Amino acid sequence: MSGRLVVIGLGPGSPDQVTPEARKAVAEAKFFFGYKPYLDRLDLTTEQVRVASDNREELSRAQAALEKAAAGEAVAVVSGGDPGVFAMAAAVCEAIEAGPAAWRDIDVSVVPGVTAMLAVAARIGAPLGHDFCAISLSDNLKPWDVIEQRLTAAASAGFVIALYNPISKARPWQLGRAFDCLCSVLPAETIVVFGRAAGRPDERIGIFTLGEVDPEQADMATCVIIGSVETRAIERPGRPVLIYTPRSLAPVSR
Amino acid sequence: MSGRLVVIGLGPGSPDQVTPEARKAVAEAKFFFGYKPYLDRLDLTTEQVRVASDNREELSRAQAALEKAAAGEAVAVVSGGDPGVFAMAAAVCEAIEAGPAAWRDIDVSVVPGVTAMLAVAARIGAPLGHDFCAISLSDNLKPWDVIEQRLTAAASAGFVIALYNPISKARPWQLGRAFDCLCSVLPAETIVVFGRAAGRPDERIGIFTLGEVDPEQADMATCVIIGSVETRAIERPGRPVLIYTPRSLAPVSR
Repeated sequence: MSGRLVVIGLGPGSPDQVTPEARKAVAEAKFFFGYKPYLDRLDLTTEQVRVASDNREELSRAQAALEKAAAGEAVAVVSGGDPGVFAMAAAVCEAIEAGPAAWRDIDVSVVPGVTAMLAVAARIGAPLGHDFCAISLSDNLKPWDVIEQRLTAAASAGFVIALYNPISKARPWQLGRAFDCLCSVLPAETIVVFGRAAGRPDERIGIFTLGEVDPEQADMATCVIIGSVETRAIERPGRPVLIYTPRSLAPVSR
Repeated sequence: MSGRLVVIGLGPGSPDQVTPEARKAVAEAKFFFGYKPYLDRLDLTTEQVRVASDNREELSRAQAALEKAAAGEAVAVVSGGDPGVFAMAAAVCEAIEAGPAAWRDIDVSVVPGVTAMLAVAARIGAPLGHDFCAISLSDNLKPWDVIEQRLTAAASAGFVIALYNPISKARPWQLGRAFDCLCSVLPAETIVVFGRAAGRPDERIGIFTLGEVDPEQADMATCVIIGSVETRAIERPGRPVLIYTPRSLAPVSR
């Protein structure tokens, strides 16, 4: 007897950014697997059960959740942001592909959410206003030289770049190296945004240039947006600066 | 006297994917500027006013909205999906930068939403599970050769690619040309997904390979996702196939 498993995106953190679809999916599940800070966001009943695990344990968490679903239970795996962006949806698929045949008969669904780069972008204007890419800076699952090649390719081709997982205690030098790498293809004046906890009470947004940005000011929960050469700042007396990337490659008409 | 202007992302289309934040922002505005199909989604009171405009009129729409806000009104500009992804937030910023100084004193904010590629990805698994990019295929605002360079750079570097604005009556050949261009760097078996109206009653999802995909099956509202060489399909007897891109570059352990 197969149960069901839903992978739920809880958005960037503010309850106001959780979709009704995600809220319903939470109400309908019984067992909740996830990284503890995401589970802590849930408002559960006494019948609902949290199964917390550490981050960097995505695959074993996915396996445990699938096992529970295969036993006929209503299971949810929760992610911050969107579960399809450097989060649990891919880990669940990996576990299904490598797992017992019975896991392929589980009713699996994914509930999308607002991912960090969109929430950070919204707080400062429209830095992702043109072609952009998202790169995870974690070299736990891919070699560092592939990351450098992707950074260089994306910056050279004119993409705005959003970096996820920029830095952690176990990966202290990668963000600085990424900036060095980008400095070889982008001007020092290129705009860089650090966005942390967008939409939450502890939100922190910083605007820098590539030439002067300090990687130490980022942490695990920071989303870093690096502009293209087109990305611009609009100064506004008495109001926060707006950062945006024009839709057009031609200069803005004045 | 300056009013306020909020750029609101209404998500991919299902009311269940509109965030509470977006719903509140709609309730608090009086004048609504947007492309008619997005305005039609709103449930407004008799005091609230719709100002519809055609698509491809983004800049003049933004200007009209800013004028109204500068006159002291509570104005909303609505977008489908996320307003920062190939949508109205950048057009509003462009208009502010090029417009009268008074427009810089308007209280401008952006409410993020679930953008199309996330909604489409969620319906089929986790195709954006690793590094990915988003490219608008419209050559109204940038030269076609830049688009081809970006497609080639992204595919060669291993990014999954999401295409927005893939085709329209005025731009009938671009999607086919993009597939031709990608065929020169990606294998014919590369997975391609067409997702239209994800989460809505008229949803249509198609899964193809790059070698056999027919661009004519896409329309303006289709989001096209082109896998990387890592993107995989999991066949499931009696259930829909799952498409995903592993988090890791190494082969899945079995």
